[in-house]
Amino acid sequence: MIASEIELPQGFSFSSRSAGIKASGRTDLALVECCPGTKAAAMFTKNRVVAAPVQVGRAALRASRDSIRAVVVNSGNANCATGLPGLKACREVCREAARLLDTKPEQVFPSSTGIIGVPLPTEKILAALRLLARQQQTNKEAVCQFARTIMTTDTRPKLAWRKVCSSNGEYRLLGIAKGSGMIHPQLATMLVYLFTDVKANPRQLKSILLEACDKTFNCISIDGDTSTNDTVLLMASGKSSVALSRRTSPGFRNALLHVCDSLARQLVSDGEGVRHVIRLSIEAAKNKHEALRLAKAIAHSPLVKTAWAGADPNWGRILAACGNSGVRINPAKIDISIGEQKVCSKGQACAFDEGEAHKHLSQPISDIRVQLNRGIRNLRFYTTDLTADYVRINADYST
Amino acid sequence: MIASEIELPQGFSFSSRSAGIKASGRTDLALVECCPGTKAAAMFTKNRVVAAPVQVGRAALRASRDSIRAVVVNSGNANCATGLPGLKACREVCREAARLLDTKPEQVFPSSTGIIGVPLPTEKILAALRLLARQQQTNKEAVCQFARTIMTTDTRPKLAWRKVCSSNGEYRLLGIAKGSGMIHPQLATMLVYLFTDVKANPRQLKSILLEACDKTFNCISIDGDTSTNDTVLLMASGKSSVALSRRTSPGFRNALLHVCDSLARQLVSDGEGVRHVIRLSIEAAKNKHEALRLAKAIAHSPLVKTAWAGADPNWGRILAACGNSGVRINPAKIDISIGEQKVCSKGQACAFDEGEAHKHLSQPISDIRVQLNRGIRNLRFYTTDLTADYVRINADYST
Repeated sequence: MIASEIELPQGFSFSSRSAGIKASGRTDLALVECCPGTKAAAMFTKNRVVAAPVQVGRAALRASRDSIRAVVVNSGNANCATGLPGLKACREVCREAARLLDTKPEQVFPSSTGIIGVPLPTEKILAALRLLARQQQTNKEAVCQFARTIMTTDTRPKLAWRKVCSSNGEYRLLGIAKGSGMIHPQLATMLVYLFTDVKANPRQLKSILLEACDKTFNCISIDGDTSTNDTVLLMASGKSSVALSRRTSPGFRNALLHVCDSLARQLVSDGEGVRHVIRLSIEAAKNKHEALRLAKAIAHSPLVKTAWAGADPNWGRILAACGNSGVRINPAKIDISIGEQKVCSKGQACAFDEGEAHKHLSQPISDIRVQLNRGIRNLRFYTTDLTADYVRINADYST
Repeated sequence: MIASEIELPQGFSFSSRSAGIKASGRTDLALVECCPGTKAAAMFTKNRVVAAPVQVGRAALRASRDSIRAVVVNSGNANCATGLPGLKACREVCREAARLLDTKPEQVFPSSTGIIGVPLPTEKILAALRLLARQQQTNKEAVCQFARTIMTTDTRPKLAWRKVCSSNGEYRLLGIAKGSGMIHPQLATMLVYLFTDVKANPRQLKSILLEACDKTFNCISIDGDTSTNDTVLLMASGKSSVALSRRTSPGFRNALLHVCDSLARQLVSDGEGVRHVIRLSIEAAKNKHEALRLAKAIAHSPLVKTAWAGADPNWGRILAACGNSGVRINPAKIDISIGEQKVCSKGQACAFDEGEAHKHLSQPISDIRVQLNRGIRNLRFYTTDLTADYVRINADYST
């Protein structure tokens, strides 16, 4: 995707700079201003350890009845496991942003990502915030700078967008995400911001966001860990001429699904140390729940993931992971395919060209299909290999 | 432990040799003969994909009413996902061993460990078996050779023993294990053989074995994977003068616990690529179930395990793993200690000497304590770091 092609949704302006949180001196603080009337819907981590900004952001949306005027994001510090001082620091940042933008604190939505257990450097953030409030811009460069500012171990910014032309006029949708380790179906160290200028009420946004997350961000996994700060935030400025209705909803739903799917795939392929992305299809399951459970059991098995790192068509490990999933599968009914080749039929080895399977798995993206032959439910899941580089990135004392 | 100190339980003889299953030419087939009257109890993998020898072994014990006269173990081939031909091959091996030792096929207990999905080379095994039947020995060298023969990726044989002197006389207990990757609380690619010359009935053996496994093999984890072939087999020849009774049981229970605990720790410290063993204490949980769930969530988190590889006192990842466990913990009540130092108090950072914590974690074995402050149940769990070497061992195409 070429950033110069981005069409910005109307009603949002961006600014970012270094507040000195990251030791590297890279930009680490971003501010988004939303025009009056912007409505929001959000989804948060399911980890029981919840960072301060998640607690504050959730309460803010409740207090403002899902009205939003600003987003403040810092990278380099998660403001998690920081107790009451962490909550106070977060609220202070929101209050200052509200003062600067002449709005209410509960209309400021905070996010943090980075190391856990270190106090948030509030003074640095407040000082930088005052400068940011005067630098708001509505151009592509500011959007790309925002995408870079929220990065932690990401190697590249993640953006996706879509312009929708309907008989009522056109509107735009822009998604920006960060996250690379810890990505997991329950929304993990993942921040996703979705901006649109369609006109919609919070209830509409919530239901469409839930569906899109379910089909995209909840169907990816890098290491099975779930973070304490994950947030997906959808904001609708209403600045276009199109309002969500029974007629326009399907178009918006599709556009959102497209943007979320693109971001989800960008997240997976930028996973820490990832060399191979696996498109895992679980087929003929009894229901979605067991399909997802199977997919996770396979995607989280270190033995399966390390085999993928070596492009090893070791289907026995996949079968063993299925047996280990807690789903009452019948091994004698399971078929496994790698690329176009069936490698396991009814739970048993079948003759296949190992060299070709190895070649297929050596590609950046490859396909593995597990057919349970229990029902009619299919699921597509994106996951990755586990490489020595992943270990190196995460064993580095102290990340 | 020095093998020359082993005291052999009476009533068992051993032989092993290369049947040509392993490409390396190392010994890969072992036979144990048990004297008439030997009783057994066994525990098996909970993976739903179950190898042929596990199916045959389970049925054999049922058919023989837990009487056992021989054990045949091969390494280099798991005889798993081999379908009906795999079952037939396993039964043929048992029949031939029975013929050679003049006993019944259902009194022969089979085990296999190695690659999944490759047909068992039955002819090679049958030929080697005929030679083995004539080479049975009852000395320490034969025992050590048995321990080496059942190895796969293990770097060293694993043995533990105990002599018990009671007022009724003395008896011996000898344990031999294999396993290094895939070790997991549900008994994973782990074979454990426990030999004793105490006199006991199968019901007594079963209940004591269950308890010992629960406290030892079910409280260790290397990579969270559970194999298709795991077996723990306890055999009692009755050749000593001591019979299990209300009076003698506690001594035997202790001895078994001691032997199993030693083997469990040997398994963990020989885990694939392991550089650091972690003695994880979950304290003040509500019950055993949630303590075990917490321990597994921590022990299976790639982010936690890679931090341990770098001796990184990153307690935030441990806290996040707790939040991710599914247990309804209150993060604000959790204390975490590394070695003697508290590093997290009530879910928040507390001042600690990071250099000292790093030094503690750099040792071969270190202690991490997670206090939930929810109840009175404590649990001790052994686990390991996740190193780049683990990835290398398992990514090697094809293991």
